[in-house]
Amino acid sequence: MKYLSILGSTGSIGTQTLDIVRQFPNEFKIVGLTTNKNSDLLLKQIKEFKPKAVAIMDKSKVDDLLNFSSCQVYSGIKGLNKIASLNEAETVVNALVGSVGIEPTYHAIKSKKNIALANKETLVAAGSVIMEEIKKNNVNLMPIDSEHSAIFQCLNGEKINEVSKITITCSGGPFKNFSKGQIEKVTVQDALNHPTWSMGNKITIDSATLMNKGFEVIEAHWLYGIDYERIKIVIHPQSIIHSLVEFKDKSIIAQLGLPDMKIPIQYALSYPKRFSSNSKSLNLSEIKKLDFDNPDFEMFPCLKYAYEAGAIGGTLPTVMNAANEVAVWSFLDGKIRFLDIPSLIRKMMDEHKLIDNPDLNDILNVDKKTKDETKRVIEEEILLER
Amino acid sequence: MKYLSILGSTGSIGTQTLDIVRQFPNEFKIVGLTTNKNSDLLLKQIKEFKPKAVAIMDKSKVDDLLNFSSCQVYSGIKGLNKIASLNEAETVVNALVGSVGIEPTYHAIKSKKNIALANKETLVAAGSVIMEEIKKNNVNLMPIDSEHSAIFQCLNGEKINEVSKITITCSGGPFKNFSKGQIEKVTVQDALNHPTWSMGNKITIDSATLMNKGFEVIEAHWLYGIDYERIKIVIHPQSIIHSLVEFKDKSIIAQLGLPDMKIPIQYALSYPKRFSSNSKSLNLSEIKKLDFDNPDFEMFPCLKYAYEAGAIGGTLPTVMNAANEVAVWSFLDGKIRFLDIPSLIRKMMDEHKLIDNPDLNDILNVDKKTKDETKRVIEEEILLER
Repeated sequence: MKYLSILGSTGSIGTQTLDIVRQFPNEFKIVGLTTNKNSDLLLKQIKEFKPKAVAIMDKSKVDDLLNFSSCQVYSGIKGLNKIASLNEAETVVNALVGSVGIEPTYHAIKSKKNIALANKETLVAAGSVIMEEIKKNNVNLMPIDSEHSAIFQCLNGEKINEVSKITITCSGGPFKNFSKGQIEKVTVQDALNHPTWSMGNKITIDSATLMNKGFEVIEAHWLYGIDYERIKIVIHPQSIIHSLVEFKDKSIIAQLGLPDMKIPIQYALSYPKRFSSNSKSLNLSEIKKLDFDNPDFEMFPCLKYAYEAGAIGGTLPTVMNAANEVAVWSFLDGKIRFLDIPSLIRKMMDEHKLIDNPDLNDILNVDKKTKDETKRVIEEEILLER
Repeated sequence: MKYLSILGSTGSIGTQTLDIVRQFPNEFKIVGLTTNKNSDLLLKQIKEFKPKAVAIMDKSKVDDLLNFSSCQVYSGIKGLNKIASLNEAETVVNALVGSVGIEPTYHAIKSKKNIALANKETLVAAGSVIMEEIKKNNVNLMPIDSEHSAIFQCLNGEKINEVSKITITCSGGPFKNFSKGQIEKVTVQDALNHPTWSMGNKITIDSATLMNKGFEVIEAHWLYGIDYERIKIVIHPQSIIHSLVEFKDKSIIAQLGLPDMKIPIQYALSYPKRFSSNSKSLNLSEIKKLDFDNPDFEMFPCLKYAYEAGAIGGTLPTVMNAANEVAVWSFLDGKIRFLDIPSLIRKMMDEHKLIDNPDLNDILNVDKKTKDETKRVIEEEILLER
């Protein structure tokens, strides 16, 4: 029996994680849950899974829970940190969206929890600090992302110093073959229409700009200790091959499957075992063909920015991530256009004064400052101009 | 330093194995070599690699070697068995073609050698006996075949009881989209023109009938202990994915690479390490697409026969293999037509009286009898009729 806390249990990854817990009642027990503001769904989850404690990020909604739930209720970022470090939890599933995921991950590691990580921003914005704590506290970091789960599985029984190259596959997103003119005009609805994966809104927009793929390059760097020059991206519209690892003998190991997040989520929870899954089996002769192409760094500049931020390091990825986060939510709110997202990221990266070896506080400060500044630019420069 | 004997050092796999030995002079030392009848090439190999002993199968050619070589020279099947069990060898590379490979493999295992196996007929015709000896003598059996090397690599760090399915890829051979009428008329040259792999003549014809893929199904059964119902074939004309393993969580691990036999040969020798290779790197965005289709069991009946022979077991696969071997050489000699190959196999399988739990002698006897009878049918029924 594994004891789990799920941070972000009402989102896309959170609810799918609970589907798996529901399927294996003898393997997993929920001890903590958190939501941003979806108190209704969290109440249902409390009734079903009977956690010891829960937290809600939005403090204005804490009363919704206090009056109806039988368990301990916390709120705000301190509440999230509390759930991340509950005594009873062995593994913390971090399914939060955005840089709000950094602090709870840090606290979970400090409390010797194993981490099943879906929150991309943790490693993108704070990779150096988090990986140092992982080593210091000797805990496991299991990726939930399909691409990093694929790489993790390809490395099973292999030696990291025999890896020559990691290739991360990328569906190309909904605007793969769009012209510059077409991309300029895309709507929120267009961008939310991902060709292969069903995901939350933030990551779906990140997948449309390919910022998400840039994030994955940075995550792969931290997770597997591979230089950026040896992390490649290949466009693969069917999302069947989830990533590939080439070894120095030119042999390549890949992980494949239908695009179904439950497979990597379950693996992160069941590892080192594999449990039976009721997900659909991949049948290649039904799929008929798999396509591959080079990514277009000019049409999707976020990819370039990620390689640049990753290679320079320090607080530059933190800035890139913070600017992206504000830009994406503003795009989703209809405030800015699709191509404003890369422009805002570029502007914030250009204006940033780099801190070379940041600690957690540096990172949280840069994150907050960049978000404030990006919001200001959106309000004062983009919105006022229109 | 690993000490190697290579059985069949003058053939396609044998010479490629020596290319690798040449590349890693500090890793491998040759102690034994054998040839069928290519004394010229063997003499060159003796001069270069300075083995302790060699053997030539064709006794009439033994003088070619005795007069010129500085090492011990043996001949005939006893000579092969001698080289297979040389004291100094730790690993025996079996790159023989045909059921002549069975006895030397058996002797090598009895002498506690690890086996790097390219000879398909060993496991097809004598799988039960060979696997029992492997277990008894606690030696390693490393597959050299690209498909089985792929499966072996996919299973690295995994548990065999978590495997749900093995899928062996198949280029489809040169006659993939041929009609029955077209297949009836194919020539030896047509059949030797394999679309993706450069291999010896016998295996190239086996790849054109898809008998080779049938052999691989039976080998996979013995190597990995998987039921025939869980071993599938998918047509994949580019031969880039070399095979796939599905686990019970619906996650699939595959091994990929350009079709280059040096990669699996080198892995069989370097395992558990991987050495750098000067083989070409796979670039999926250059390849552009990978195709997949179901195999056609009606157009390529050898595939069906292999599943049938494998599932029934006993001496039936021995008979299938022996009939195929004689038929293929007769086809290569221009004696019979392409479609006579499956007909002869069917006839011999139908006429065979099964021995359920054969020992090595039963297998060698059935092999010899079936070969004699197949030759008789070719001479007296097929050739006389024309």
